[in-house]
Amino acid sequence: MSQYHLEIRVKPRPGLLDPQGKAIHHALNSLGWDGVHDVRVGKAMYIDLDAASEDEARNTAEAMCRKLLANPVTEDFEVTVVGVAEGATS
Amino acid sequence: MSQYHLEIRVKPRPGLLDPQGKAIHHALNSLGWDGVHDVRVGKAMYIDLDAASEDEARNTAEAMCRKLLANPVTEDFEVTVVGVAEGATS
Repeated sequence: MSQYHLEIRVKPRPGLLDPQGKAIHHALNSLGWDGVHDVRVGKAMYIDLDAASEDEARNTAEAMCRKLLANPVTEDFEVTVVGVAEGATS
Repeated sequence: MSQYHLEIRVKPRPGLLDPQGKAIHHALNSLGWDGVHDVRVGKAMYIDLDAASEDEARNTAEAMCRKLLANPVTEDFEVTVVGVAEGATS
């Protein structure tokens, strides 16, 4: 088993209302950044996880997203394996 | 001017308490995922922005992070240019 470090990004689906993004967009305009066209806000999660392989780590993280981390109706998710500590756990 | 699509990830600094991450960690354990060692939760922001070059787009986004999007005491941020629509705006 190795310990994998994964990054999971959960973002609101295109077209769905994102009030937090709208608020940030407005705040950026107020601060003088006029060239901003759209802002959408999601979550970035960083998980350290034991798995036998990179594929297993990715599959586990995707299962976590489907079951807990993302709302399947309103959000999309992406999983990236960003690092591995070989044999960190036995 | 081109319109750049940027991804900004804001995450809590290592060592600082992250109650949201702790809650998710506990929930994942409760759902049967025992191989999880650490969970940290940040924000993923997606911004569409006019800029003359990729460097300018990145510098603008980093300025936004320093001024509004990230807490400089407790959070780190990373900016990635994920796409560009050439001449989308004039």
